[in-house]
Amino acid sequence: MNMQLRLKSYPADGMEAMPENFEAVAGPVPVAGDGQILVEAQFFSVDAALRLILQDSKDFLWRYNLGDLIHCEGVATVVESRSDAYKPGDMVEGAIGLQELAAVDARSVTRVDTELAPPTAWLGGMGVSGLTAYFGLLDECDPKPGETVMVTGAAGAVGSIVGQLAKIRGCRTIGITSSAEKCRWLVDVLGYDVALNYRDADFAAQLEAASPDRIDVIFDNVGGDVLNIGLKRIAMRGRVLICGATSQYVHANMQGPSNYLALGTWRAKLIGYVYLDYAARFGEARRQMADWAAEGKLRFVEDVRPGGIADFPHILRDMFSGSNKGKLVMRLPA
Amino acid sequence: MNMQLRLKSYPADGMEAMPENFEAVAGPVPVAGDGQILVEAQFFSVDAALRLILQDSKDFLWRYNLGDLIHCEGVATVVESRSDAYKPGDMVEGAIGLQELAAVDARSVTRVDTELAPPTAWLGGMGVSGLTAYFGLLDECDPKPGETVMVTGAAGAVGSIVGQLAKIRGCRTIGITSSAEKCRWLVDVLGYDVALNYRDADFAAQLEAASPDRIDVIFDNVGGDVLNIGLKRIAMRGRVLICGATSQYVHANMQGPSNYLALGTWRAKLIGYVYLDYAARFGEARRQMADWAAEGKLRFVEDVRPGGIADFPHILRDMFSGSNKGKLVMRLPA
Repeated sequence: MNMQLRLKSYPADGMEAMPENFEAVAGPVPVAGDGQILVEAQFFSVDAALRLILQDSKDFLWRYNLGDLIHCEGVATVVESRSDAYKPGDMVEGAIGLQELAAVDARSVTRVDTELAPPTAWLGGMGVSGLTAYFGLLDECDPKPGETVMVTGAAGAVGSIVGQLAKIRGCRTIGITSSAEKCRWLVDVLGYDVALNYRDADFAAQLEAASPDRIDVIFDNVGGDVLNIGLKRIAMRGRVLICGATSQYVHANMQGPSNYLALGTWRAKLIGYVYLDYAARFGEARRQMADWAAEGKLRFVEDVRPGGIADFPHILRDMFSGSNKGKLVMRLPA
Repeated sequence: MNMQLRLKSYPADGMEAMPENFEAVAGPVPVAGDGQILVEAQFFSVDAALRLILQDSKDFLWRYNLGDLIHCEGVATVVESRSDAYKPGDMVEGAIGLQELAAVDARSVTRVDTELAPPTAWLGGMGVSGLTAYFGLLDECDPKPGETVMVTGAAGAVGSIVGQLAKIRGCRTIGITSSAEKCRWLVDVLGYDVALNYRDADFAAQLEAASPDRIDVIFDNVGGDVLNIGLKRIAMRGRVLICGATSQYVHANMQGPSNYLALGTWRAKLIGYVYLDYAARFGEARRQMADWAAEGKLRFVEDVRPGGIADFPHILRDMFSGSNKGKLVMRLPA
């Protein structure tokens, strides 16, 4: 028996992915082929971007058909190996799909080194979220000491790391999130200089007051009105990284940044980016971030929720309600 | 007597600037101060961007108050000089405002060298339009031979030069315009490889068919749906120059590019730019373009309409109806 989560119906336009869009089914136990490993899942990454690609559309490089296994990154333990690279008991991270057991190519996964960071961190700071934050901020935006960096989705998986990396670079940081309580957490725990709640009626005025020297870098995870308001505050030669658009993923027709002409006035750029382009430097980034964590300069925050395969859609909804702090992870029962 | 065009009322949101928004009034004859020259206007540049800044808004670096002289670039003859740099009879180009006579700082204008190009070209290819095209395409977008370059507003003042510069660079060019007749002109006269009419119902399909290798550079002058449809065809590491947004200038709330997440998928950039940043290289650009013109590789196209100061608003409306080819210029009666 191998419980799997599959797509039952496409989410409706404008709606979150609902539990009824998914189906938990018992599939066959996979068999590891030559060069493959059979792994048993322990932790799954809960990603907002899943909603984006769950569309009946050809616009994405990845396209879901009904009945497809839901794509997911997970941390898993090797139970059988037909590769020299791994032996039973080793832990790996990779795109194993939302299922209890998976047979995957040994070369497609990353070894989980628990001396460097605990298992769940390999879905957060040591995984896609951390690597996305690291190369997106430090390489694509290249902020200078003293510059002002605005992070949207600042309490989320990527944003929680971006803000801390910007402080390590010597920047002034403005974190944007969705509640007063998370604002306090951003300042007290993650060290943001300022944190603002975009749901406040006077958010635009608050952002203007918080950015007297305007904003040199916007690391945008949410899109929509928040990005648009941020663009009005962009500084000369500002950089706006388009990392995600969680506020728009439910919409087939997204809201574009109507203030984009500010890019001209301020000689700024909107930058598209995919962390995978930096694959050759993943090791460097992981060692650097682990060092900073050991020195107490960087904190990986995970929000780990227990659940079985069938519970995943409910935890995914929690993400869209904005309840999580840091990387949202689902832990399978032992 | 010095006829001047002044702002009488702000254009209504969603509307073009109408003749009743302007007022032609007789002002005093200006007096040249120390270091200044008194000039008599001969030609005025008709610019779509004028509509953008004619708003009751603080969002632009330039703000109009009611009664203000309308800003305008013109070519004029020096009638009196209190500067060593010019003598009566010299021709200059500069921001002289929409008036028959102007007193301006000698250092704020450019000498019109009619051996390099005729007077009207100094408002087109040798002026703001040509310099915008030159540095925007060649420096900001840096297209490589064989790459595909899409130009919107391709028959306009800037676009008509961009397409030719891209051909000189060895690129494949796709010009977008607003009529079948202008499409033929783009191919036959300006040498575009393909020209498409965005008003065709199947424009998106035509653009897809015309860009089998996708589009490496979009030089955008219009914004709106045309930019959005172009973004769906952007190539890996594509560059999108935001030069203007003529389709959106009438709207206080502009339409943003809703397909902007394509920037991420394709590792592309939206680039904001102002030609003035390249002021130190204007001489180089003018000499290079004049050389190409002399070699028959580059054609400056001007659409010169006769008119007095009070006629300017009517000629401005012609621009928004898309009737012009190349740089639209108003010539004052001799």
